[in-house]
Amino acid sequence: MKLIEEYLSVRRQSEDICCRLATEDFVVQPVPEVSPPKWHLAHISWFFEELILCKNLPGYQRFNQQYAVLFNSYYKAAGEHWIQGERGQLSRPSVEEVYAYRKYVDENMLTFLENHKITVETRELLILGLHHEQQHQELLLMDIKYILGMNPIEVKYSATALPEADKPLAAWSRFHEGTYQIGHQGTEFSFDNERPKHTAYLHKYAISERLVSNGEYLEFINSKDYNNHKLWLSLGWDWKNKHQIKRPLYWRDDKKEGLLEFTLHGVQRLDLNKPVAHISYFEADAFAAWKGCRLPTEFEAEQFLNNTENINTGKHSSAQLFHANDTNQITAQLWFWTSSHYSPYPGFRPFSGMVEEYNGKFMCHQFVLKGGCIATPLNHYRHSYRNFYFPEQRWMFSGIRLTKDI
Amino acid sequence: MKLIEEYLSVRRQSEDICCRLATEDFVVQPVPEVSPPKWHLAHISWFFEELILCKNLPGYQRFNQQYAVLFNSYYKAAGEHWIQGERGQLSRPSVEEVYAYRKYVDENMLTFLENHKITVETRELLILGLHHEQQHQELLLMDIKYILGMNPIEVKYSATALPEADKPLAAWSRFHEGTYQIGHQGTEFSFDNERPKHTAYLHKYAISERLVSNGEYLEFINSKDYNNHKLWLSLGWDWKNKHQIKRPLYWRDDKKEGLLEFTLHGVQRLDLNKPVAHISYFEADAFAAWKGCRLPTEFEAEQFLNNTENINTGKHSSAQLFHANDTNQITAQLWFWTSSHYSPYPGFRPFSGMVEEYNGKFMCHQFVLKGGCIATPLNHYRHSYRNFYFPEQRWMFSGIRLTKDI
Amino acid sequence: MKLIEEYLSVRRQSEDICCRLATEDFVVQPVPEVSPPKWHLAHISWFFEELILCKNLPGYQRFNQQYAVLFNSYYKAAGEHWIQGERGQLSRPSVEEVYAYRKYVDENMLTFLENHKITVETRELLILGLHHEQQHQELLLMDIKYILGMNPIEVKYSATALPEADKPLAAWSRFHEGTYQIGHQGTEFSFDNERPKHTAYLHKYAISERLVSNGEYLEFINSKDYNNHKLWLSLGWDWKNKHQIKRPLYWRDDKKEGLLEFTLHGVQRLDLNKPVAHISYFEADAFAAWKGCRLPTEFEAEQFLNNTENINTGKHSSAQLFHANDTNQITAQLWFWTSSHYSPYPGFRPFSGMVEEYNGKFMCHQFVLKGGCIATPLNHYRHSYRNFYFPEQRWMFSGIRLTKDI
Amino acid sequence: MKLIEEYLSVRRQSEDICCRLATEDFVVQPVPEVSPPKWHLAHISWFFEELILCKNLPGYQRFNQQYAVLFNSYYKAAGEHWIQGERGQLSRPSVEEVYAYRKYVDENMLTFLENHKITVETRELLILGLHHEQQHQELLLMDIKYILGMNPIEVKYSATALPEADKPLAAWSRFHEGTYQIGHQGTEFSFDNERPKHTAYLHKYAISERLVSNGEYLEFINSKDYNNHKLWLSLGWDWKNKHQIKRPLYWRDDKKEGLLEFTLHGVQRLDLNKPVAHISYFEADAFAAWKGCRLPTEFEAEQFLNNTENINTGKHSSAQLFHANDTNQITAQLWFWTSSHYSPYPGFRPFSGMVEEYNGKFMCHQFVLKGGCIATPLNHYRHSYRNFYFPEQRWMFSGIRLTKDI
Repeated sequence: MKLIEEYLSVRRQSEDICCRLATEDFVVQPVPEVSPPKWHLAHISWFFEELILCKNLPGYQRFNQQYAVLFNSYYKAAGEHWIQGERGQLSRPSVEEVYAYRKYVDENMLTFLENHKITVETRELLILGLHHEQQHQELLLMDIKYILGMNPIEVKYSATALPEADKPLAAWSRFHEGTYQIGHQGTEFSFDNERPKHTAYLHKYAISERLVSNGEYLEFINSKDYNNHKLWLSLGWDWKNKHQIKRPLYWRDDKKEGLLEFTLHGVQRLDLNKPVAHISYFEADAFAAWKGCRLPTEFEAEQFLNNTENINTGKHSSAQLFHANDTNQITAQLWFWTSSHYSPYPGFRPFSGMVEEYNGKFMCHQFVLKGGCIATPLNHYRHSYRNFYFPEQRWMFSGIRLTKDI
Repeated sequence: MKLIEEYLSVRRQSEDICCRLATEDFVVQPVPEVSPPKWHLAHISWFFEELILCKNLPGYQRFNQQYAVLFNSYYKAAGEHWIQGERGQLSRPSVEEVYAYRKYVDENMLTFLENHKITVETRELLILGLHHEQQHQELLLMDIKYILGMNPIEVKYSATALPEADKPLAAWSRFHEGTYQIGHQGTEFSFDNERPKHTAYLHKYAISERLVSNGEYLEFINSKDYNNHKLWLSLGWDWKNKHQIKRPLYWRDDKKEGLLEFTLHGVQRLDLNKPVAHISYFEADAFAAWKGCRLPTEFEAEQFLNNTENINTGKHSSAQLFHANDTNQITAQLWFWTSSHYSPYPGFRPFSGMVEEYNGKFMCHQFVLKGGCIATPLNHYRHSYRNFYFPEQRWMFSGIRLTKDI
Repeated sequence: MKLIEEYLSVRRQSEDICCRLATEDFVVQPVPEVSPPKWHLAHISWFFEELILCKNLPGYQRFNQQYAVLFNSYYKAAGEHWIQGERGQLSRPSVEEVYAYRKYVDENMLTFLENHKITVETRELLILGLHHEQQHQELLLMDIKYILGMNPIEVKYSATALPEADKPLAAWSRFHEGTYQIGHQGTEFSFDNERPKHTAYLHKYAISERLVSNGEYLEFINSKDYNNHKLWLSLGWDWKNKHQIKRPLYWRDDKKEGLLEFTLHGVQRLDLNKPVAHISYFEADAFAAWKGCRLPTEFEAEQFLNNTENINTGKHSSAQLFHANDTNQITAQLWFWTSSHYSPYPGFRPFSGMVEEYNGKFMCHQFVLKGGCIATPLNHYRHSYRNFYFPEQRWMFSGIRLTKDI
Repeated sequence: MKLIEEYLSVRRQSEDICCRLATEDFVVQPVPEVSPPKWHLAHISWFFEELILCKNLPGYQRFNQQYAVLFNSYYKAAGEHWIQGERGQLSRPSVEEVYAYRKYVDENMLTFLENHKITVETRELLILGLHHEQQHQELLLMDIKYILGMNPIEVKYSATALPEADKPLAAWSRFHEGTYQIGHQGTEFSFDNERPKHTAYLHKYAISERLVSNGEYLEFINSKDYNNHKLWLSLGWDWKNKHQIKRPLYWRDDKKEGLLEFTLHGVQRLDLNKPVAHISYFEADAFAAWKGCRLPTEFEAEQFLNNTENINTGKHSSAQLFHANDTNQITAQLWFWTSSHYSPYPGFRPFSGMVEEYNGKFMCHQFVLKGGCIATPLNHYRHSYRNFYFPEQRWMFSGIRLTKDI
């Protein structure tokens, strides 16, 4: 029974996130990496249809044959898929039809869960499906923020003003040289890319207990070094020039009102004490160089998370973003970039079946982020969790945590 | 009073065309030249706001300051404009807000028309604005067809089956060598590019009284010459290879059912007797070469229209497309390509003011089409009317009319 | 015998043009439309090999089988061809090998011309081959100028200073309304695109007897209107902004020395009295609009050439460019842009055989230029000659001649 | 004195490598990453001019002011530089002028070395300059191979047939879990990216003692799995499809003669026993997956090199490639790909001054290769040497060495 409740709870959460959108907000794809929310809602249902229902529920009929192509993201083992960058070209299925699709999948999933014997393997796929949907919940919030934030017409996702985040004192956590245990072990769920648990050797380092603030980043921008090629990776310098990067993604320099920041509860005056958010790897790396520091490796970051009680207090989570009693500022807590290329762990074994394509095939050109953010589902906070993005991307809730050799 | 009625009638027509759409259909832009219907609806209101209300109605306040940028198409004299290819990135304003904008403009226009003295110049701009909106009505139907037609999920714009078009016998109209009068003269409205009336010298030619049929075009496709470079313009050959062109835009080769055609009332079995529609200049030119013929010049085409009683019977028009008693097949009557580059007439003088940019600046790389189509507003059928598109475009209702030297 | 002499004379001319180049100058292709000189030298030999020798000289063996692909420009009827934009990727065949190829073709051509009966058809192809080679002589000078001119290191094609051109008084030739004869008729050689002779109707116009000068064009640049979108075609405005166009192709704005011009005899101080050269259609059209004038149609231009004694004095020609007694400034005499799209004449019939592809397939998106330039072979000056380029191109010797309605 | 001899010896080597080229071979740049050999020859001289002569030799005058821009590769601290992808657009300076430039730099360097006191810092820069020139010697051989190999006309760099490489038995070297020392320490030269020496923790692994052979790779190509997406990284799969990759870079599938390989001594029948060469990371990674193995990390690879006597026998080196008594097949010994992203070592400190840009700024999107190849200068064989390329590149002498967990 617990599994059914969990299923329903996760499924409800996705719809809760979207309940504040206008129909039109579900449809657009302003840049290729930002998918239309209705696509997300359908894709995460297709995942259950494809992996569980088609293979296990006798007599199951797909809701619509064409959805198998339209809502497959990239699983070549599952056949053709619609091109990612062209998801925003499709007005249909309508939002209403997508919700009908979800309902149909849910009803069949309940039938299946209530009346059929569930093998260990299917149970594992189901749990993966729930984690998958939760990953898309964070993506939904990222994409919604981008869709609303790039529109010259001001739109607020949430009307309620949200309280301030803590401003902890700056301090450095220090770690000694030696071997550490990295990765995930145990019976709870984890993705294949977090495994196996293994040993890594770290050298002495210190890592900042708090994230870099808007104020500190502003100093960087205002210094003459922001435009000094020496601080930037060669590809980062080209990216900065090509896109005329002058500030973080959602900062706005208003002629009258000065520096503002677009947040999910509207445009706000930039708060210099809050952590700087929506930062690319290139910017994070350059900032760290400017400070005479560097970014942590993913192993250093994980060790830091292991030792830090107050990182995951459980108080911040996407669960709260769409309830009346929001108690936290959406940008308060952020993923932070590591200098580690997203690569397989020693002894890595991918999931099997169609979901073999879940993680491994993306291990090229991306960098690992650690820690979790306010949009991350509560049960995804895990020290071994490896988030990953391309170094020029910055529409996720990403920040900077400094590290230095000692 | 007549002007007010005309204004209301034209304005209503635009909304009638859109009343069959789902909200999602208003938002997408599958290719840069196809604009979201909600953009069209707003843009044609902006035209009145910008040209009439802001300049003539004392105390008029814009509905929304940002619309001046968002819904300016390309008038640099009117300031900045949103990039054409990025209209589909905007979820807001919502469809509802766009309709509110239209209502606001209409109310102010009525106030203005009822209570203020209207100068000759303003009256002319107003009439231009109405013709402008009617041009967008045809564009709306083209764009809606494309949006629905490119979607793998079948959607019908009209549920009603539509009757067959005439299948006139093939015959050639013959014209002798000599001078002819070309262009528009008179007191009724015309665009600047149709003027002044002037003399042109034509050589003997014969032009087909009917358009090329689907059946004839299918013979071309099935012949080995369809892939013979000799029949194609060099740029046309490159276009055909790059986009893997194998048939007209809306034909579909279904494994089970054979050749089908997407129409505004759904996917139909291809009718070999109907005129072939949605053809690019490159295809039209190659087909004509295959037949040992050529395309007419725009002067030859205009002379043909002048001499042909039954071209414009007044029976077909977009006015009927969205009423219950549709009596015609949407693809029955088509614009046809001419071999004439879109260039200024001798003595051409553009409109003055902001609308100087209406036509003249586009006189490069486009070809003229003549005749009108079923989606063309009734009062736009005019022998001197010059429609124009790039040679690779084919989402408008375009067909082929053969010509030969005699 | 006359034909042999003509053959040898034309062939020698191509090599004379190249005798001042360093080996390295023969190899590069700085932009796709500028071919390596060694490619030109080989291509014009291939033309004779392919059209004459392979088909008519018994037992003829190609110099090198691979040259049939490497030096075919675009004749699909002759099989595969190397991609145009990648000609500069090939270091081999070496310049020496290309000259050996030319020698081999010449020896075989002489054998053929001396010992075999030549049919009328072959004779016509041979004469076409000579005209073809002469067209490439002009292209060679254009391409050499570009290759040397784009190099930051100053290189002179000719060391000798060249005398000044005439500076005729400005005057307007006036033409009355009526019918005129256009195109070529007669027994001398002409290209298929100049035929047949036919009637056109022109309205009253006046055309300037001299080309626009550097001084006049400089006034345009210095006026605020140079950056006024109203004067530019829409595509021209985009081109100007994208490529940051600020002046004609070979002008240089030197911090110390002011305005200079790169010419084939080196960088010179800009002479304000000379005709402005290396102008795109977009620039020519905008300049004419600035002057309240327009560009002539190709028919108006041809009629003007027919009536003007001193246009073709026979004193200027590429024959003189590489002899010691150069008597004219290389930029003195220029092709001038017309507003006419490059289209077929009424009754146009292309050449037959492989050379059917010579002209007709390029009749899209190009504009006609008339008149000839100092780099044009003497016998190519012909009032009916139609030169053609894309509106953004300007590496040919192109200028501006104004026209106005009267 | 020793330094002068070393200087002269390295400088001579670069010219020896080029002495077999035709002038035309020095000029072309068929793809952006392959530079014209004359550019290499000038750039490595510029390095000495810029770093040593301009700063240390009183009264030194640059050979040509413009070379400072033309032959700067990417050092922004040294001012503007010509765009990398446009090096092949420049016919001048001629090859002869480039050799004159080298001579001029050499003469001044000798004057400096013989008559001036050399500081420790300058000495270090000089040694870096020599290593830099040697890196370009390997690049020269890579680029020459590409320039000759992509030309449809067969050209041999070396006429002499070259003897066979050893075919060692397959065997696996096994390594136990634990800490290992990685990187360079000591007084001999090393690049900044090899330092500092540090500890890494490795898990049990076995690494193949020989490289993958052509025969083994051919089996992969012939298996149905070569086109199975599961074996490929997602970006690798896209690359393979976009470029229609069917075999290694220099293999040719000849209709008559079967599989051939282009080598620096001409096109040869493919020898199935030799190591497969000119392989991208994507191909290497897919092959390893097909074998149920993986690529080594760079640490595993270095440890393997440390333990393997016979890797660097000193018998193979580019020094021998251009002497009469060539004794080795050019593809015999190869760099091998590691799965390690090119990242800074713990405690990494870049060179200071202009050469700060030498390595660090490229630490994004590239993968490390280890081992050295037949084109590598003898003194560059060093177990800590880190070569690096983008995963799609394959014009360097790269191969595959398998690794597996044990």
